[in-house]
Amino acid sequence: MNSDMLVRITRYYRALNRLRSIGLEKVFAHNLADAAGVSAAIVRKDFSQLEIHGQKRGGYEILDLIGRLGAILGKGEPQNVIVIGCGRIGKALMHYSGFEPDGIRMVAGFDTDPVVYAEASNPIPVYPMSRLEEVVEAMNVKVAIITVPESATADCYQRLIDADIRGILNFSPVTLKPQIIDGHLSPVVHNINIALELEQIFYELQYPKEATARDES
Amino acid sequence: MNSDMLVRITRYYRALNRLRSIGLEKVFAHNLADAAGVSAAIVRKDFSQLEIHGQKRGGYEILDLIGRLGAILGKGEPQNVIVIGCGRIGKALMHYSGFEPDGIRMVAGFDTDPVVYAEASNPIPVYPMSRLEEVVEAMNVKVAIITVPESATADCYQRLIDADIRGILNFSPVTLKPQIIDGHLSPVVHNINIALELEQIFYELQYPKEATARDES
Repeated sequence: MNSDMLVRITRYYRALNRLRSIGLEKVFAHNLADAAGVSAAIVRKDFSQLEIHGQKRGGYEILDLIGRLGAILGKGEPQNVIVIGCGRIGKALMHYSGFEPDGIRMVAGFDTDPVVYAEASNPIPVYPMSRLEEVVEAMNVKVAIITVPESATADCYQRLIDADIRGILNFSPVTLKPQIIDGHLSPVVHNINIALELEQIFYELQYPKEATARDES
Repeated sequence: MNSDMLVRITRYYRALNRLRSIGLEKVFAHNLADAAGVSAAIVRKDFSQLEIHGQKRGGYEILDLIGRLGAILGKGEPQNVIVIGCGRIGKALMHYSGFEPDGIRMVAGFDTDPVVYAEASNPIPVYPMSRLEEVVEAMNVKVAIITVPESATADCYQRLIDADIRGILNFSPVTLKPQIIDGHLSPVVHNINIALELEQIFYELQYPKEATARDES
């Protein structure tokens, strides 16, 4: 499966859980198309490639689709996530309730500042970095979000690797590069650089990109 | 210029400003390579394509490079940005100081909740949505960050388009789609869906991608 298709599948999955939460039982390709920002034809093509067939005129059973797409996405496994660096952005992520419908649970925060551990407003426990290995093992955590300052990023990255963290979502402006181990990238790293996204938007305003066929989907 | 190269140029530009801020005058390809997470060969290839030549053994003049790359990136123009939705994530972005080295200025926040306008801790002014057009025009704002709840996203998007905002960085889980006007996408939209990034990381842990030649750069 290519990464565009994976993005669409995760969007379909997310939309299905929401539709189910408001009491719907069936869904049509165009509903999922709206939710994923693609055309209904692409939804049908994706489902046909996954050998998922709807009923004529009747659409798809939501529960059935959630089960099939969930199996593809590895749902059922615990999707526990920790936040490293409990500054403003880290705290905002710790409080964000939008992950639950996707089965993602923020289970702990880590910080080097003892003042942060004791704050009554923390929605999840916050631990000193010295307890990283212990908590990661106890809660079977494989994925971490990095929201530490730029100067602390490289150290933090190495500590996460040592603690056997396999996936990292990095909000620090330092681009983290995984190693190549047995032909695969390890850990899996997604870098989100907010300043860079804004830069690119300003650039695209100055030099507009031509819209492609894909943009019309 | 393709988008990979643009990302690299913005990273070089950012690194150059930092190196200058600590007093350096010259830079070598491998310094920029480290900062951008690529090889020195790629830096040299990019510069050669842009017809930027260093001195033999002497590297590049930092000020000269900042000027040339800045011109390519459209620096000099005001890069004022507003934040729509001053919840936890919006506030974290309003307080984030990491944009200034890139010439990006957060100039105002907007919210529908009057309680937010009056908070003494706001680092930049926060206005009611009814003043959007007025402030955007007065401050010559072209780019907005959306951090409103999912249910408010579609309305907010239309209001920004009506206020002549041309670029949007969208943190809402609703995927915003631009229109195609004269063959170009309008407004320029970058969607950052944090839950989706985490989903993809979990998926890649389950089905590892093969590392490509590009990953070795």
